[in-house]
Amino acid sequence: MPASADRPLLLTPGPLTTAPATRQALDRDWGSRDPAFIALNAQMRNRLVSIAGGEGTHVCVPIQGSGTFAVEAAIGTLVPRQGKALVLVNGAYGRRMARILEYLGRDYATYETAEDAPPDPEGVDAALAADAAATHVLAVHCETTSGILNPIDAIAEVTAARGRRLLVDAMSAFGALRLDARRTPFDAVMASANKCLEGVPGMAFVVVRRDALEAAAGNAHSLSLDLHDQWTAMEGNGQWRFTPPTQVLAAFNRALDLFADEGGITGRHDRYAENCRVLIDGMRALGFETFLGDDVQAPIIVTFHAPADPRYAFDAFYDGLRRRGYAIYPGKLTAADTFRMGCIGHLDADDMRGAVAAVAEVVEDMGVTRRGRAT
Amino acid sequence: MPASADRPLLLTPGPLTTAPATRQALDRDWGSRDPAFIALNAQMRNRLVSIAGGEGTHVCVPIQGSGTFAVEAAIGTLVPRQGKALVLVNGAYGRRMARILEYLGRDYATYETAEDAPPDPEGVDAALAADAAATHVLAVHCETTSGILNPIDAIAEVTAARGRRLLVDAMSAFGALRLDARRTPFDAVMASANKCLEGVPGMAFVVVRRDALEAAAGNAHSLSLDLHDQWTAMEGNGQWRFTPPTQVLAAFNRALDLFADEGGITGRHDRYAENCRVLIDGMRALGFETFLGDDVQAPIIVTFHAPADPRYAFDAFYDGLRRRGYAIYPGKLTAADTFRMGCIGHLDADDMRGAVAAVAEVVEDMGVTRRGRAT
Repeated sequence: MPASADRPLLLTPGPLTTAPATRQALDRDWGSRDPAFIALNAQMRNRLVSIAGGEGTHVCVPIQGSGTFAVEAAIGTLVPRQGKALVLVNGAYGRRMARILEYLGRDYATYETAEDAPPDPEGVDAALAADAAATHVLAVHCETTSGILNPIDAIAEVTAARGRRLLVDAMSAFGALRLDARRTPFDAVMASANKCLEGVPGMAFVVVRRDALEAAAGNAHSLSLDLHDQWTAMEGNGQWRFTPPTQVLAAFNRALDLFADEGGITGRHDRYAENCRVLIDGMRALGFETFLGDDVQAPIIVTFHAPADPRYAFDAFYDGLRRRGYAIYPGKLTAADTFRMGCIGHLDADDMRGAVAAVAEVVEDMGVTRRGRAT
Repeated sequence: MPASADRPLLLTPGPLTTAPATRQALDRDWGSRDPAFIALNAQMRNRLVSIAGGEGTHVCVPIQGSGTFAVEAAIGTLVPRQGKALVLVNGAYGRRMARILEYLGRDYATYETAEDAPPDPEGVDAALAADAAATHVLAVHCETTSGILNPIDAIAEVTAARGRRLLVDAMSAFGALRLDARRTPFDAVMASANKCLEGVPGMAFVVVRRDALEAAAGNAHSLSLDLHDQWTAMEGNGQWRFTPPTQVLAAFNRALDLFADEGGITGRHDRYAENCRVLIDGMRALGFETFLGDDVQAPIIVTFHAPADPRYAFDAFYDGLRRRGYAIYPGKLTAADTFRMGCIGHLDADDMRGAVAAVAEVVEDMGVTRRGRAT
């Protein structure tokens, strides 16, 4: 797809660039209690359970709103009022889970590492050994703040070995980075339509172990965000309790067709990995430096250090790229001045080459010659 | 628009039939932090304040999700933890507000009337006089359960005279039934994109008195549904805190263009009133009876008694209409066996005549001759 100032390609952590066929599925009104719409939802939910490897053990509960709504719904429903969460923090999304627990007035502790350092599974194990009250571990799969890949399989292993439960915010990873319930024990994984599954924003979902959900009646702090109530109602008649985003759901189910056509997680991952490689190689060739080491870089979103050159300013850099048809993202780190470019969405290696070429033009125009990080 | 089995007209309380131009606005990806999208949101919010007559006194805070999310956000943010709500109940949506208060653990009482009886403002006044602890009154403008019009102006008057605050669930009325802050005192009105404003579902909003919102910091029970936090963030940079449903919002802003083109509340109301008259006259001519008296019937959705004839069955009736391109709604009353047909959405009098003609065919096919209520 050619980039244009009018309809820029979105090199962001989402909302993303979607396929024309996905947006085409938006062009229809649906009765939310009509059998055709009920069937669409059942298919969507089954597909999401399957992507998580949860057939027979897990169920999918969708929820209206953004990904954070699903994260809050999962925490509020699954962490009992007398429970305690250990939250693994190395960026904004870990911190957000702690903030949700503050709102809910539920007990928690944090295990923090630097924004460029994954949590150490041995350290998590020690934290759990020292805290018998902690019933749940809350972890982020890919921390979109930096783009870092956290070692979710190893975290799941130590959590299960200590008899604790795991909830995974896999918002920016689900569908591209494998997290399979058959080999990685987790109670719930939270994600949204508009990340690696390439739907449009407006709904999110939780794939949750059925027995954990069954045991969670009455826990929730909110009617709207009560996953147990949402699930019970949906099991009863296949319908949403409250008005669903019908067009968004129809587009998401279409996006899941395209996901299957591409070869599922393997195909999606491989395209994103190629996008990421082209982006990083191209940017390094221009003199930019990545924030993360390659060993912990997920193929989702890349954080680059702001150039040391005093002629660099984010707003002008953004505007220059935006005029050329590429929307990027500011940095979100506390530790360093950065910007971010995403590799996900309906984009391929040619799009990434186009983005790198646009960056080259913009820094040339701006006279930014020292492009490495400030030292 | 011709009715078809493939793309039925939605004679429901929403999601509704939308205009093609509205759905066309869905066909674009937006960066959620892009200046063009920020400008779109500012325009939308200003328009919604204006429709409520709230310029200078009220602000609009949109929220992801369905209408219930906005109702819960308003209650959780605006009714203080030490406050008490008097909930006026004559249908499912009044009861739902009471259920939300149960989840929140906040004190409340109910003032109940029958499903075909509006709350009596003098009775509300007496209830407030007898309950000094009640700080807030929660009322429904049009109770979609039956389609009844509640006397919101008179309720607002007694509430204000007693020095209490009013929150109005105007979900199915906003944009078609006038509720104007310049003459009707209220702290907040809650509504959604996909009712009388004829957008697609996925977002809702609260038009709230600025000073009440400013005083509400720290009240909310939920991060996702904290209206004060949502507002503060949006005032800061014009952006949503968490991923907004970008396509849904672009379509909603387009729908608000069409709303203005139609003459705002007056034009929208008049079309719906004509739809309602054609529907009721036509159905009565076929022998059907309305549940409500004409004096309390809002031009939004009409509840009809199920025919007394034993050959009538809702499912077959629904399927017959659905095959002819009309989706209707089951009844939701506790008191009587009914079905519902909506008058709202992108529909005109010809569409309603088409629906009545389809009903005539279906009951003829079913052999339903006794079409009045069972006695």
